[in-house]
Amino acid sequence: MTSRRQLDELLAAVADHSVHPSEAADELSKLPYRDLGFARVDTHRELRQGAPEVILGEGKTLDEVARIALALAEAGASSVLVTRADEPMRAAVREVLPEAVEDERARAVWAEREPIEKRGHVLIVSAGTSDGPVVHETRIRAELLGTHVTVHEDVGVAGLHRLAPVIPDLDRADVVVVVAGMDGALASVIGGLASCPVIGVPTSVGYGSAHGGQTALNAMLTSCADGLAVVGIDDGLGAGSIAARIARRAEVRAP
Amino acid sequence: MTSRRQLDELLAAVADHSVHPSEAADELSKLPYRDLGFARVDTHRELRQGAPEVILGEGKTLDEVARIALALAEAGASSVLVTRADEPMRAAVREVLPEAVEDERARAVWAEREPIEKRGHVLIVSAGTSDGPVVHETRIRAELLGTHVTVHEDVGVAGLHRLAPVIPDLDRADVVVVVAGMDGALASVIGGLASCPVIGVPTSVGYGSAHGGQTALNAMLTSCADGLAVVGIDDGLGAGSIAARIARRAEVRAP
Amino acid sequence: MTSRRQLDELLAAVADHSVHPSEAADELSKLPYRDLGFARVDTHRELRQGAPEVILGEGKTLDEVARIALALAEAGASSVLVTRADEPMRAAVREVLPEAVEDERARAVWAEREPIEKRGHVLIVSAGTSDGPVVHETRIRAELLGTHVTVHEDVGVAGLHRLAPVIPDLDRADVVVVVAGMDGALASVIGGLASCPVIGVPTSVGYGSAHGGQTALNAMLTSCADGLAVVGIDDGLGAGSIAARIARRAEVRAP
Amino acid sequence: MTSRRQLDELLAAVADHSVHPSEAADELSKLPYRDLGFARVDTHRELRQGAPEVILGEGKTLDEVARIALALAEAGASSVLVTRADEPMRAAVREVLPEAVEDERARAVWAEREPIEKRGHVLIVSAGTSDGPVVHETRIRAELLGTHVTVHEDVGVAGLHRLAPVIPDLDRADVVVVVAGMDGALASVIGGLASCPVIGVPTSVGYGSAHGGQTALNAMLTSCADGLAVVGIDDGLGAGSIAARIARRAEVRAP
Amino acid sequence: MTSRRQLDELLAAVADHSVHPSEAADELSKLPYRDLGFARVDTHRELRQGAPEVILGEGKTLDEVARIALALAEAGASSVLVTRADEPMRAAVREVLPEAVEDERARAVWAEREPIEKRGHVLIVSAGTSDGPVVHETRIRAELLGTHVTVHEDVGVAGLHRLAPVIPDLDRADVVVVVAGMDGALASVIGGLASCPVIGVPTSVGYGSAHGGQTALNAMLTSCADGLAVVGIDDGLGAGSIAARIARRAEVRAP
Amino acid sequence: MTSRRQLDELLAAVADHSVHPSEAADELSKLPYRDLGFARVDTHRELRQGAPEVILGEGKTLDEVARIALALAEAGASSVLVTRADEPMRAAVREVLPEAVEDERARAVWAEREPIEKRGHVLIVSAGTSDGPVVHETRIRAELLGTHVTVHEDVGVAGLHRLAPVIPDLDRADVVVVVAGMDGALASVIGGLASCPVIGVPTSVGYGSAHGGQTALNAMLTSCADGLAVVGIDDGLGAGSIAARIARRAEVRAP
Amino acid sequence: MTSRRQLDELLAAVADHSVHPSEAADELSKLPYRDLGFARVDTHRELRQGAPEVILGEGKTLDEVARIALALAEAGASSVLVTRADEPMRAAVREVLPEAVEDERARAVWAEREPIEKRGHVLIVSAGTSDGPVVHETRIRAELLGTHVTVHEDVGVAGLHRLAPVIPDLDRADVVVVVAGMDGALASVIGGLASCPVIGVPTSVGYGSAHGGQTALNAMLTSCADGLAVVGIDDGLGAGSIAARIARRAEVRAP
Amino acid sequence: MTSRRQLDELLAAVADHSVHPSEAADELSKLPYRDLGFARVDTHRELRQGAPEVILGEGKTLDEVARIALALAEAGASSVLVTRADEPMRAAVREVLPEAVEDERARAVWAEREPIEKRGHVLIVSAGTSDGPVVHETRIRAELLGTHVTVHEDVGVAGLHRLAPVIPDLDRADVVVVVAGMDGALASVIGGLASCPVIGVPTSVGYGSAHGGQTALNAMLTSCADGLAVVGIDDGLGAGSIAARIARRAEVRAP
Repeated sequence: MTSRRQLDELLAAVADHSVHPSEAADELSKLPYRDLGFARVDTHRELRQGAPEVILGEGKTLDEVARIALALAEAGASSVLVTRADEPMRAAVREVLPEAVEDERARAVWAEREPIEKRGHVLIVSAGTSDGPVVHETRIRAELLGTHVTVHEDVGVAGLHRLAPVIPDLDRADVVVVVAGMDGALASVIGGLASCPVIGVPTSVGYGSAHGGQTALNAMLTSCADGLAVVGIDDGLGAGSIAARIARRAEVRAP
Repeated sequence: MTSRRQLDELLAAVADHSVHPSEAADELSKLPYRDLGFARVDTHRELRQGAPEVILGEGKTLDEVARIALALAEAGASSVLVTRADEPMRAAVREVLPEAVEDERARAVWAEREPIEKRGHVLIVSAGTSDGPVVHETRIRAELLGTHVTVHEDVGVAGLHRLAPVIPDLDRADVVVVVAGMDGALASVIGGLASCPVIGVPTSVGYGSAHGGQTALNAMLTSCADGLAVVGIDDGLGAGSIAARIARRAEVRAP
Repeated sequence: MTSRRQLDELLAAVADHSVHPSEAADELSKLPYRDLGFARVDTHRELRQGAPEVILGEGKTLDEVARIALALAEAGASSVLVTRADEPMRAAVREVLPEAVEDERARAVWAEREPIEKRGHVLIVSAGTSDGPVVHETRIRAELLGTHVTVHEDVGVAGLHRLAPVIPDLDRADVVVVVAGMDGALASVIGGLASCPVIGVPTSVGYGSAHGGQTALNAMLTSCADGLAVVGIDDGLGAGSIAARIARRAEVRAP
Repeated sequence: MTSRRQLDELLAAVADHSVHPSEAADELSKLPYRDLGFARVDTHRELRQGAPEVILGEGKTLDEVARIALALAEAGASSVLVTRADEPMRAAVREVLPEAVEDERARAVWAEREPIEKRGHVLIVSAGTSDGPVVHETRIRAELLGTHVTVHEDVGVAGLHRLAPVIPDLDRADVVVVVAGMDGALASVIGGLASCPVIGVPTSVGYGSAHGGQTALNAMLTSCADGLAVVGIDDGLGAGSIAARIARRAEVRAP
Repeated sequence: MTSRRQLDELLAAVADHSVHPSEAADELSKLPYRDLGFARVDTHRELRQGAPEVILGEGKTLDEVARIALALAEAGASSVLVTRADEPMRAAVREVLPEAVEDERARAVWAEREPIEKRGHVLIVSAGTSDGPVVHETRIRAELLGTHVTVHEDVGVAGLHRLAPVIPDLDRADVVVVVAGMDGALASVIGGLASCPVIGVPTSVGYGSAHGGQTALNAMLTSCADGLAVVGIDDGLGAGSIAARIARRAEVRAP
Repeated sequence: MTSRRQLDELLAAVADHSVHPSEAADELSKLPYRDLGFARVDTHRELRQGAPEVILGEGKTLDEVARIALALAEAGASSVLVTRADEPMRAAVREVLPEAVEDERARAVWAEREPIEKRGHVLIVSAGTSDGPVVHETRIRAELLGTHVTVHEDVGVAGLHRLAPVIPDLDRADVVVVVAGMDGALASVIGGLASCPVIGVPTSVGYGSAHGGQTALNAMLTSCADGLAVVGIDDGLGAGSIAARIARRAEVRAP
Repeated sequence: MTSRRQLDELLAAVADHSVHPSEAADELSKLPYRDLGFARVDTHRELRQGAPEVILGEGKTLDEVARIALALAEAGASSVLVTRADEPMRAAVREVLPEAVEDERARAVWAEREPIEKRGHVLIVSAGTSDGPVVHETRIRAELLGTHVTVHEDVGVAGLHRLAPVIPDLDRADVVVVVAGMDGALASVIGGLASCPVIGVPTSVGYGSAHGGQTALNAMLTSCADGLAVVGIDDGLGAGSIAARIARRAEVRAP
Repeated sequence: MTSRRQLDELLAAVADHSVHPSEAADELSKLPYRDLGFARVDTHRELRQGAPEVILGEGKTLDEVARIALALAEAGASSVLVTRADEPMRAAVREVLPEAVEDERARAVWAEREPIEKRGHVLIVSAGTSDGPVVHETRIRAELLGTHVTVHEDVGVAGLHRLAPVIPDLDRADVVVVVAGMDGALASVIGGLASCPVIGVPTSVGYGSAHGGQTALNAMLTSCADGLAVVGIDDGLGAGSIAARIARRAEVRAP
């Protein structure tokens, strides 16, 4: 379940008697997380996948969130990020992690404990002002994972001329994240212009036939633009994660 | 239920004894349609609303369609149009109305008995080649109702440059009909450029998340483009009807 | 992306050296909107499409709305309209635009800065008293865009006799807007009587099987009435926009 | 589970020793149906509820249907009716019940073995020609259950004048069944005119936003017409059943 | 649109010059409702259909409801009933109609001005205690329309023995109303026992897969019980109306 | 409807004249529940099915819940459990049943009056911390029904190593309950490992495409894991009931 | 991922040098399935979970199915079962496994190679004749897994008396499987009578509001019957699997 | 709309009089596609976005597809790929492009005219054998776009041990594509192991609650695995496109 290399090493240790078999089995079972009773903190994820676990605040009590945040920090996570956190929850996190900062609109609070050297460029483009919370959740996640981020908000599609200043940045980006609610048409338009991978984030902005983001999601999924994949409705966090994975691996361009 | 004027006239005739009251009541009840038993042909609609009834072939037998077509023709409809008609149905109509012509892709057959003088310009723009059947159903209806029609097919949105040659025609149109399936994004893009009314027709083109046209429909309904209304999925007929109503009423522009 | 004419002129200016090529490219990119950081105000839309941008209040902060409203006013919009605005938001707009007026039921606030000369007639018909907010959003938009508007509320369909006084106005209208929730049947009934274009606005009035307006929307889309198109659920704004486009272009009738 | 009276009688028989207790328990368990292995034919339903069981052909083999039909006939059902039966199934039934007659459009076959004396009036009104199969399934069921049935097809709503000749029959009916697909608006219109109970039958006629009858169903359910209830999509059988129950119980009117 | 008889009389009056034609047309247009501006009160419905209009409180202001209630009372309605009325609305109605009484759980307030002589029996059976509000809305409507009503609450289906005492009342009823949420199975069970018409009312009781009543609705619609029709989710009012229409017309049984 | 044995005994009593027939019929109808007017308390269920009735707090008033709780206690239920009970409701129950205890997160209050001897092992495994309320509702129900319960929370699927310590308990369990929201993937993973029956409980944890638990529900239903069945969204109560039925019947394993 | 015991043994073997570490890692990776290129046959599942893998025919070619069937047989599966197999597929399986038998209605073909000694009782009850295919798929699976199976078909709910002969078998069963389409009400009724675990199988039988089994599924999930869990629509296979797991583990009852 | 660089160059050419302004405008409008009447072939896309247009066969006639394929080939596309092409369509393409090859299961036909030098590694993992068509559509697209592709089919999740041999390839991949229907759980499991970007492709494999791929789609979208984005149902083409974009840009790893 851990990486193949770790499995090989553990088995080698058993073979040379430096580790007893039953001990090895225990090792395998218990090591990579910390059990808080109500939560098993995945302190091992950053080693395994290169990014620390993120805490979804919604549905947890203040106390639970604070204790998980502390456990991650104590386990040496490069950053601790809590999303979907209302004001009291952000305060609770700042109490246990005094260095934490917050962003009200993105409903996020985070402590960057060991900043990662930045690599690769993520471009975030949004359709409207109301998409702001998702835009900034994406930005925070991508920055904490060590990428340069550029943001263009309220680009729209009804007046395509507003798109013009985005084009030069399209050419410089390693990945583009398009954040759009309602008809999600901006993803198709950007998808028809960009040559790098494009990640769409449908948002729940809009009423009536917007169906809480479902229309934008479906529109993005059925778009005939090439090179476009999507994350869940309002999932700025997921968009930031995959965008950072793509951007950090992208080859450095010749000047 | 007929126009106010007819009601006034009938009542006046009753008042001056040229029509007996119970006769008038009968008149009101029986006149404006022809009863074929299985169908009541609305021979009066053209007088009342300026456009003859159209026959939806789907769900009717060959015999029923042929008899309704004949009844409309005998009642003096300016044109007789049958939509959603497969090959045998089109043949059945041509047997009773030998002057009828047909369009295989649009699955339509029609006889234009008294061509209406053309007025107003309808521009039809489609997203892809597969939208063809709906495009041509729209065109046939709008032409039979007496408008000039221009068609641009497969304009797409993934390569916006394909849109360029459409722009001059946008300025000349009295109404634009946008036919698009999948994400329906073309309606938003055209809606952001046109200054005349825009009618969107979502099509059932696409698979998976296209949901048989529902995604395109929802996207068009929630588009933030101004001046856009939509008809039902694949409803080229409805689009042609309202487009013709708008175009024929549009003021003649100064040269 | 701007009109063809503007593109031609700019290119001509480049050709005669009055504008430098890189300057022209910059021009194209930056001119037609104002960047507030969180929003790009489309100051150009009125020139391009004949109607100023409208501000959707929902999902924006008071400060954002006030700043966008001011930017539109400063850019010379003929009117500034904010919809889906609750009481505090309406107050915030009236603070920056003291001449603004508001309509509580329509949840709208607007400043009409350069009244447009009225042309064309829009008739609005609603099914029930509860449709009022949407009726008045439609009316405000259509009036600000320069049309004469007549309103008949609570016409219903359960007692068709209530429809009678609407009929004479049907004959005078250039376009009819039908506002109805629940089963949306009024759109079909009006659609069977009118000879001008009909725009349906489904509303979220009703409970249970009304499905928040989805039933009325579907019923209107699948209505067999000829010459009917629809806008999104509760979208009085969109209805007002397209109705005004149709009505203002309609030829003046002979007396 | 049988009627209270039967329970009382059986218990009385046990009390006076004419029936042994364990025998009575067996009696209770086995009597009122016939077990064919793959089917338990409810030979008792007509006694219990006044109407014999109906056989839904769809999803059963020819042999199963034929054997159930025979079992019902042998058990003395007043009529044997098979619905949703294609041609081979209708033939299979006619083989075992030679006196059976069929209706191709309604996809039904039936043998009326002991005609019930007719009582009460059912009026069936349909919106369009394509609703025919459901209209006639309703009619057949209601006639077999012993009612007088009047049918008006293709009444529509787009041309309300076609409704006029229906009105006098509305006044004579004990119950009205409205059969309509697409927007189902006819049910609301009739519901606003009738003073007797109204049963709506949504049909799957229509395409796109008709959603296979779901739109008509929802529209009927959310109609503000008073005194209207509905049965399932295309369920002519159910409509015929409840209509007959209502009509046969209706008090005979004074002449 | 009014009854045939009234049309005949009016035309006769025109014929004998007692009414002038244009006056008659006006009469037809204006008589049968009262226009309050925001509402057209259907004062004529009771004459036409035997039951006065009911006021749906939801979505209307206190002032609107009070004025409509007063208008109906002044027009001589046998009763004035407001449903979906919260406490302040019920108080507002009682202020203008001091004789009004209310039922908190049913969220209804009403004034019975001219009690109708009771005729026919309605039996209401509910699945659970939480269905109470709908049960009592049904009961109030049916009683105001002049029927005897019997209620059995919380009959359930999980313990069928609780159903036993209902059976004798089933035999006495002219119509049964079954009120049930969640799986709606009680309607199928009652539908298999009753020989009179059965009206199902799905309720929004339940969570998760109850889908706000949609599951109960679908289950009732697809039930194979004979003689069952349904009204909309939580629509106690509609159930009371049709039940009363059925019960009042049912022939009086011999003793 | 009661068990066959009871029916036999009652009939035997009638046969030997110790019970009069009409008395027996009354007995059958009235015995097994207590009628509170608004509720019929199923005091008989524990005898019939081995588990006392549970009170769903949601949708009932405080007074109704307290009175039903008392009635169950007075009828000798082994335990009285109220679920979906907010703080005031829990207090109301504790007032009438002072020995009752409560669990805030599970929103439950209960009085265990005659503890059942424990038998069989239920293992509950949850995907995340936010599933806690459902986990503990399941646990409380299963414990009250007399089983040993082991709980592992926040096992996740993104880091499968967290699953390791659960495996030994899988081998000891008689049934496993998997509680998971969002993608519900944990049920498939556990379903691929366990050899005993597995019960999935989808939870409404998650946002956007989680669709309030519908996605987890569908994923569990379509899982290709063998030996998996599911209960409704958030239905910890149902999961506890069936798990206890399975576990208590499981054969005691040889040591 | 294999059982803990196997992991311990392998690690012990590594520790005593009877197995080399890298060999052990290879072992872990490759042993428990056979790779056919297009399929990895889980030859290990029967050891791990006590039941051999089943082959879903739908979506596979004849050749693929035949080769997987053969691979399972060669690996020593106690039985090889192919479901959702049309006639040609069943023939293809019988060609490679000549001892295989088939059931046309259940669309299944299987070879029982080492019959398992039967233990425990499964009772299958269906609502209607059309549920037959699912009933028999359930039966075949449960029998192949070594249980006694009793079947009652067409029990219905509309005539509850048909349920009576099922009751004695309810008392004898270790688990009941209820197979029902349309409103799925039979599951609630049986769920209210049985004291053992109940597994519901919604079927796609029915039309219109049956929604292809979704209504029955939802009804079963929201049923207030205690001790009921469900499998997917038409998933007789899954029902057979979990029923067998429950029944085989059930303690043998005292005579 | 073309790239900024091209715009700059064209404007420079206009400035130095080598291109006339109106000529430039024409250039901008007409160059980048070829108009076949029914289709505008985007011959420019490969230059603009690095990948040639792909032809979706579904919904087009044989003749249309053949003519578009030829046009792309004549315009110098590096490859011509037709997807969703049945046998006759594949033959029609091979007639005009004799060098074309086809894959029956993937329903694709393609001609690779100028093979692109391969760069980067794409790993494709599927849940079951039935996902094969989508797997191979993904593979073909990614190979034609110049990447190395490794495929592991039928990895499943019910027997996680089958996953083991995939792990070493996970470490080597630049991007992983997970193809899975039914519950889509494989994407969550792989998403918890991989450290590179993961693209999920839900497939329409499965029946009942699989809802034609919608369940897998929703499950993937709501998965808590980090670094996962999805494309539409069965959209192997889209997955291949974005995977190739990611893989080709990934930095070459040190050996």
